[in-house]
Amino acid sequence: MTYYIGDVIKDEKLLIARTPEEFEKTGVTVKTRTGVEEIDPNKGKVRLNNGSNLPYDTLVLATGSNVFLPDIPGIHEEGVFKLKDLRDGIDIKTYIKEKQCGSDKCRKAIILGAGFIAMEMCEALRNLGLETSVVYRGELPIRRWDAEFSKLLLGKLTENNVEFITHRMPVAIEKKGKKPGLCLITNDGEMDADIIIFALGVKSNTALAEQIGLKIGNTGAVMVDYSQRTSREEIYAVGDCCGVYHRIKQQWVHMPLGDIANKQGRVAGANIGGHAMTFPGIVGAQSFKVFDLEVAKTGIDEWEAEQFGFHPVSTIIWGTPSARSMSKGKKLGLKMVANKSTGKLLGAQAVGEGGAVTKINTLSACLWSGMNLDEIGYIDLAYSPSFGGAWDPIQIAAQMLRKML
Amino acid sequence: MTYYIGDVIKDEKLLIARTPEEFEKTGVTVKTRTGVEEIDPNKGKVRLNNGSNLPYDTLVLATGSNVFLPDIPGIHEEGVFKLKDLRDGIDIKTYIKEKQCGSDKCRKAIILGAGFIAMEMCEALRNLGLETSVVYRGELPIRRWDAEFSKLLLGKLTENNVEFITHRMPVAIEKKGKKPGLCLITNDGEMDADIIIFALGVKSNTALAEQIGLKIGNTGAVMVDYSQRTSREEIYAVGDCCGVYHRIKQQWVHMPLGDIANKQGRVAGANIGGHAMTFPGIVGAQSFKVFDLEVAKTGIDEWEAEQFGFHPVSTIIWGTPSARSMSKGKKLGLKMVANKSTGKLLGAQAVGEGGAVTKINTLSACLWSGMNLDEIGYIDLAYSPSFGGAWDPIQIAAQMLRKML
Repeated sequence: MTYYIGDVIKDEKLLIARTPEEFEKTGVTVKTRTGVEEIDPNKGKVRLNNGSNLPYDTLVLATGSNVFLPDIPGIHEEGVFKLKDLRDGIDIKTYIKEKQCGSDKCRKAIILGAGFIAMEMCEALRNLGLETSVVYRGELPIRRWDAEFSKLLLGKLTENNVEFITHRMPVAIEKKGKKPGLCLITNDGEMDADIIIFALGVKSNTALAEQIGLKIGNTGAVMVDYSQRTSREEIYAVGDCCGVYHRIKQQWVHMPLGDIANKQGRVAGANIGGHAMTFPGIVGAQSFKVFDLEVAKTGIDEWEAEQFGFHPVSTIIWGTPSARSMSKGKKLGLKMVANKSTGKLLGAQAVGEGGAVTKINTLSACLWSGMNLDEIGYIDLAYSPSFGGAWDPIQIAAQMLRKML
Repeated sequence: MTYYIGDVIKDEKLLIARTPEEFEKTGVTVKTRTGVEEIDPNKGKVRLNNGSNLPYDTLVLATGSNVFLPDIPGIHEEGVFKLKDLRDGIDIKTYIKEKQCGSDKCRKAIILGAGFIAMEMCEALRNLGLETSVVYRGELPIRRWDAEFSKLLLGKLTENNVEFITHRMPVAIEKKGKKPGLCLITNDGEMDADIIIFALGVKSNTALAEQIGLKIGNTGAVMVDYSQRTSREEIYAVGDCCGVYHRIKQQWVHMPLGDIANKQGRVAGANIGGHAMTFPGIVGAQSFKVFDLEVAKTGIDEWEAEQFGFHPVSTIIWGTPSARSMSKGKKLGLKMVANKSTGKLLGAQAVGEGGAVTKINTLSACLWSGMNLDEIGYIDLAYSPSFGGAWDPIQIAAQMLRKML
């Protein structure tokens, strides 16, 4: 397996240097398309796949995560893709574009999985004019969101002519007829497609870390402390490959999201540079967009709450993204979960044609400082008829939950 | 002067009863178009303007605020309006509609004042097709917002053909020629108009409260405690007529906004009904919309911070309402003010074609619990490329401010 150092092709606007040449000017050497074969922690050096060795005093592991791909026949056929990094995205786009002309036109896509990456792919593929089907082993998209919200999302897929096929697992992929014809064989029948994309989730890439005996956490990710140090003090880990402290679960978790990786990188950098800094952890805020639907959540849901020893109560309310008279029939659903024992907020989910992220960001700030329902029910928000009612859905939901304690 | 009890004509969706008849069914008697002449707190009764008396055990004052109108000749001419309640809005609309046909067409409007009510009127009047001018004694609209943001707002007015005339004060209004012609005489020349609207701010209506000797706060509003009780324990006050505790200023202020009034009403009701409840105060969150520009703020600005003994530092950053690649050139400005001595956030302002309210609501939650810049700089928000960068403007501004401590 090959590991690349310094994936600087990313569309990261905050970086001053974006190319190896630009980095070089800042005194940073970036070796693209260079793999790490082995780390020798005792000698403090890294052996590269070009045969040379790179010495280090401090090492940062940012090995990311690997896509989960099922070990089925045909998984490596042409036209079968994973979706993890920029390269995958370019490959998929190129493949579709190349096949777009001629008799072997790329017309039909199958996405395996129904998480947020799968959902975002639906929009991208429909925009490219492909027939799109989602094949999922479960019943409803986006597991861990309330079923009521998942149904809303399912409706949005249907509205945009995305087929959602439930209770199916991939068994094999076969080349069929002339290119780019593929056939997905499932536990319940066969389906033709011109492109098949796997979006079944990721697992932290810990191979190098394990090779040198770094401690791995219960979540399967590299164990770090609040300063991003691993179990060896001269080796740091950041991003998808390592764990992160969840302030609500009060436990280390694996949450491979871009904003968390960015923060961890900066914390590690500060510490390495001699400025002591700790990463204060996360509350689990996340969001994505499917067509014109905003989907966001923060904290934990009822199921997780029970796993972590809380006594959850929850409520869902339906409002509008802006004032009712200006919302043009658009809906916004907000679910809030609180702990019956303490009256504190545990988490929230929101889905709507606008307005979901703003609710979840506000509630993330509430979660961050452990606010209780009494406070959230009367929190001061920037009211204006243009943007909502005098009572925000956040306040209404908190007051409703308060009565359930 | 006349005071009306129970203004139930409001478009308040949370009320079960909206008409006197509907209220009657819930056991509440609502007397519309009935004024209170006098309160006799010793006998516990209210004398109405229809000659009858209404006894009470507990009294709630919700006398609201009065519009400030300058005492100039012609202020009561036909075509001169204030904008305070629903009635004013209906009157203005009716006047414009009636004059819309025929030779005395209503073509030209002047708005006096440049606060948020004045700004919102600009949009409404332009939508009705009127030539609109704002006449203001100052230099830039929306005093207390950063000049950079006020300039952006001024640009938005200009873009929508609203004339903004500075350094002018009204001296008199004269009837001119045939209806509805009016002439506004200012300290610096005359201006013709068909309709003149005063939006120079409000003052709490404390006449009844003063009549019975209730304590009035330094802000000129009725003094209440956290349970909304006035200086007489059987009399409560809520809404625009009374003060509210500002958590950042750590002082009682007068902030006549609809959401605050709603909360105070509910707190008073709970206490009267025997459920002890306190109003936790405000952080000063507010917002309004001018054409497609969102304008919002929370907490206090530098000038206020200095008045209240803080040592403010501030920064403005410019971002986009969503991810840069999806923002179509739209801009979002965020200003944050913090206290140099403690590192705590003191306030924030945001202006943009979208995205301002969401930033300010999140920061209001941060302010509510007294978060410092270190925490805000690394707070967990629901990142997705569809909605913004991996580093939210909130985090970037907090980190920049942190360096200024």
